[in-house]
Amino acid sequence: MNYKVVLRVTGFSLFVEAAAMLLPLIVALIYREDPRPFLWTILALVAVAALLTLLIRDKRSRSLLPRDGFLTVGLIWALFSLFGAIPFRISGLFGNYVDCVFETVSGFTTTGASILTAIEGLPYGLLFWRSFTHFLGGMGVLVLAAALFPFLGLSSNFLIRAESPGPVKSKLVPRASHSSKILYGIYIALTAIETVLLRIAGLPWYDSVVHAFGTAGTGGFSIRNTSVGAYGNPAVEIIITVFMLLFSVNFAMYFLLLTGRVRQVLRSDELRFFLGMVAVSITAITINIAPTFERLGDAVRAAAFQVATIVSTTGFSSVDFNLWPEFSRMLLVILMFIGACAGSTGGGIKCSRVLVLLRSAKREVNSIIHPRSVSVVRLDGEPLSEATVRTTQGFFILYMFIIFGAALVVGLDNFSFGTTLTAVIACVSNIGPGLEAVGPMGNFAGFSMLSKIVLSLCMVVGRLEMFPILVLFSRNAWKRT
Amino acid sequence: MNYKVVLRVTGFSLFVEAAAMLLPLIVALIYREDPRPFLWTILALVAVAALLTLLIRDKRSRSLLPRDGFLTVGLIWALFSLFGAIPFRISGLFGNYVDCVFETVSGFTTTGASILTAIEGLPYGLLFWRSFTHFLGGMGVLVLAAALFPFLGLSSNFLIRAESPGPVKSKLVPRASHSSKILYGIYIALTAIETVLLRIAGLPWYDSVVHAFGTAGTGGFSIRNTSVGAYGNPAVEIIITVFMLLFSVNFAMYFLLLTGRVRQVLRSDELRFFLGMVAVSITAITINIAPTFERLGDAVRAAAFQVATIVSTTGFSSVDFNLWPEFSRMLLVILMFIGACAGSTGGGIKCSRVLVLLRSAKREVNSIIHPRSVSVVRLDGEPLSEATVRTTQGFFILYMFIIFGAALVVGLDNFSFGTTLTAVIACVSNIGPGLEAVGPMGNFAGFSMLSKIVLSLCMVVGRLEMFPILVLFSRNAWKRT
Repeated sequence: MNYKVVLRVTGFSLFVEAAAMLLPLIVALIYREDPRPFLWTILALVAVAALLTLLIRDKRSRSLLPRDGFLTVGLIWALFSLFGAIPFRISGLFGNYVDCVFETVSGFTTTGASILTAIEGLPYGLLFWRSFTHFLGGMGVLVLAAALFPFLGLSSNFLIRAESPGPVKSKLVPRASHSSKILYGIYIALTAIETVLLRIAGLPWYDSVVHAFGTAGTGGFSIRNTSVGAYGNPAVEIIITVFMLLFSVNFAMYFLLLTGRVRQVLRSDELRFFLGMVAVSITAITINIAPTFERLGDAVRAAAFQVATIVSTTGFSSVDFNLWPEFSRMLLVILMFIGACAGSTGGGIKCSRVLVLLRSAKREVNSIIHPRSVSVVRLDGEPLSEATVRTTQGFFILYMFIIFGAALVVGLDNFSFGTTLTAVIACVSNIGPGLEAVGPMGNFAGFSMLSKIVLSLCMVVGRLEMFPILVLFSRNAWKRT
Repeated sequence: MNYKVVLRVTGFSLFVEAAAMLLPLIVALIYREDPRPFLWTILALVAVAALLTLLIRDKRSRSLLPRDGFLTVGLIWALFSLFGAIPFRISGLFGNYVDCVFETVSGFTTTGASILTAIEGLPYGLLFWRSFTHFLGGMGVLVLAAALFPFLGLSSNFLIRAESPGPVKSKLVPRASHSSKILYGIYIALTAIETVLLRIAGLPWYDSVVHAFGTAGTGGFSIRNTSVGAYGNPAVEIIITVFMLLFSVNFAMYFLLLTGRVRQVLRSDELRFFLGMVAVSITAITINIAPTFERLGDAVRAAAFQVATIVSTTGFSSVDFNLWPEFSRMLLVILMFIGACAGSTGGGIKCSRVLVLLRSAKREVNSIIHPRSVSVVRLDGEPLSEATVRTTQGFFILYMFIIFGAALVVGLDNFSFGTTLTAVIACVSNIGPGLEAVGPMGNFAGFSMLSKIVLSLCMVVGRLEMFPILVLFSRNAWKRT
C-alpha cells in the first residue's frame, strides 16, 4: 500500500466536504437558524484535512496500484460519512451518533433510507444538508474529486475505475478528468432544469431544490413525512417521475445525443431493455391496481411514479405501495434488484448486468443442446470478453450472498420476514423504502444499532458495486508485494 | 428428435408405475378399503404403456442425442404425475384434478408441499401411495428406470446424465446401470433400517414405513396433521433427524465407506461444508430459541430437527418454526436455498455448488487485486474446469431468476410477501413448508389453479436441476439437425 498518497488524497477530499458544507451553513443563516452544527464540523474537517495534506509528503513518485485506489475510496467514504453526520448529532434532533451516521451514509450512497420518524419542522439547514448529500453522492463523491484533483499531479484514473458503475466502461473522452467534467455538466444542467420545472409547478424554491437533489442523486430523501405524495400535486409527481427515469439512464447517452449520435443511442441494448421493462411494469401494475382507483389516469400516474422511483432506486413515494396487491409489490421487489442503467446515478444490479446474466444463462442452456458449440455473450452487438461475463456473474453471486448474509444479522431484530429482507435489498440496491415496516410510510428507526451499522455497510457496498469494499476485507489486499 | 425411442422408453416406464401401484392396491385391500382407484389407474397405465411399446417400433438403430434424453425425462415426469394423480381424483377426497396433480408432483419431486388441510382419517391405501411417491422419486424415477431397462438394449447413460444431481459426477463403477443398482441398494437398506428403528421407538408398522419413505426421499409427507410432532415422541424425532441428515449426504460416500476408503470421505470439501453448516446452524438456532424452552435439551432437539428437515429439504416438522424468532426463520430460509449434498436425494442448490460459487466469487475479488493472475477453482483439491464453474454459475442465475419470476405469478393470489416468496423457494428447492401461510402448520390449498400449476412446474424444474426442463423450452432443442 502507498499509504502516504492514500492519506494525502483523502485529506484533499475532506477539504471538498468542508467546502460543500458551506452551502447548508448559508441556508441556515438565511433561515436564521443555529449555524454552529455546520461551523464546528467545517472547522474539524479543515483541521484534519490540513493535517493530512500538510504533514504527509511523499517525495518519491511511486506508481499506484488498484488496491491503493480501493483503500482511498473506502477511507473517503468512511470519513465523509463520519464527518457528514456531525451536524445532525450536534443538533440533537437526529438521535444518537449511529443514527446520524446511518442517515448520512444513506444520503451519500443516495439510498434515502431514513431513521427519522417525523421530518416536517426540522431546521431548513439540516434538511438541506441531508438532501445535498444525495446530490454529492449522486455522481460519486469521487468523480467530483477526480474532476477537482488533477492539480494534485495524480492520475485520477485509479479512483474512477474503483467507482465507475456498471460492467461497461464507455469512456466519453480520453482523459478521465475531462469526461467526468462532461458528466458533471449534464448532471448539474438536468438538476437545474428540474428545479425550475418544480418551481413552475407550484413548489416553493426550497422544496424544489431539495427534491431536485433527491431526484438527481436517485436518493429519495424528502422534506415531507409522506414524501412527494404530501403535495397532492399531479404536475409535481409527473415532473419527478420523468426526471427519475432520466437520471436512471446511462449519462453517456446524453453525451451521444448532444453530439448527434442518435443511432448509437437507439442501438443500446441496455436502454431498450430498461425502457421496455419500465413500460411493461407500469402497464402490469396499472392493470393490477386499477380497481382501487376511481380514475384510470390516477392509477397510471401512481404506477408510473412507483415504478420510476424503484427502478431508478430513488425511493420517493406518491402513494403507499406497501398497501398494493402482492403482484405489484413483488414486481417492485424484482425491480429493486434490477435497478437502473450502468453509468447513471441509480443503484441495483443494473440493467446491463441483468442482460449479461440472462444471456450467459441462455448460453448455458444452449450448450447442453450443442455441447461442442462455442458462443460468446454479446452486448450492443459486440462480443463481451469471458472476463467481463465472469466478473458480472461474480457480482451477482456476491450480491445475493451479501443480501442473505445481512438479512440474517438484521433478522436478530425480529421484524417480519418481508421487513427484514426488503430492508436489506433496499439498502444494498440504494433504494430506501422496502415493504411492510420499512415501506414508504415506515422508516428504519426501529432497528438496533447493530442492524443500522450492517445496513450502512450494505449501502456502501451496494453503492460501490461490491468489489471495492470487499477487496478491503481480503487478506491479499494487505500483503506486501 | 428420435421420437420413436423416446415414446418407447416412456411406454416402458409406465409399466413401472403400474407395477409400483400394486403396492398401495395391496395396502388398500389389507385395510379393506375401496381398491378401485388403484385398479382403474393400473389398467389405464398398462393400456397406454402397451400401446406405446407394442405399436411403436424403430428398426433402424439411431444414436440418441442429449435432447432425446431431456424430452424422455420431461415426458416421463409429466405422465407419471398425471397418472399418479388419478387414484387421488377417483377417491374424491383430494379436491379437483389440479390439486391431485400438485400433490403427486409434490410426491415424486420429494417436495412434500401439500394441498390437504386435514390428513388424518384419509384411507390408508391413498396415504401409502402418497408417501410411496416420495420413495420412488427419491432416487429418481429414472435411476430406477435405468436400473431396470438395460434389457431394452438402450444406453441408459443419457437418462442418468439428465437427472444426476449436482455438478460433480462421481461415477462409482463404469457401467451406469451397475452404479445405479449400488445406489439403490444403499437407499433401500437405509430405508429398511429406519423403518425398523421407528417401529422399535414405538410407531405402528404402517406409520414407520410411510415416515421412512418420507425421510428416504427427503420428501416430507406425513400422515398426521401436525407432522412428526404429533407423536410427541423424542426418540422418533431423533431417529428421523439422524436419517434426514444421512439421506442428505452424497451416496457415493457410503460406497466409499463400504469399500474402506475412509480417507477419501474425510477429504470431501462438500461433506465438511455440509456438516459444518449443520453444526453452526443448530448451535445458532438453539441459542436463538432457548429462551422459549424450559429445558435446553428440548431446544437442541427442536433446532436439530428443523435444521435437518430444511437442509435435507425433507419438510417434516416437530414444532411450528414459523413462530420462531426472525433470525432462526431467516437462517432456515437461507438453508432452503443451499439444500443438501450433490448425489443425495435432497434438493436445493446443493452444497457443492454453493462452495463452487463462493470460491468463484472469491476468485473475482482476488483478480481485482492481482489483475494478471490466473487461478482455478478447486473442489476436493482438484481443479474444476471453467466449463463446470460456468455451468454452476448459470445454474445459480437461473435458480434465482426462476424463483422471482414464479413469485411474480404466485403474487397474483395476493398472499403476503413472505408466504409468496417462501412458497416458491420451498417448491423449487423441493422442501415443502415455507413461512407464514405455507409454514409447517399451513398448506398450499389456498393457492389458485394457476399458482398450483406454476408451483408444480417449479418443483419439477428444481428436482431436475433446472437445465433438463429449460432445454425443452428452448427453440434450439426442437430444430431439425
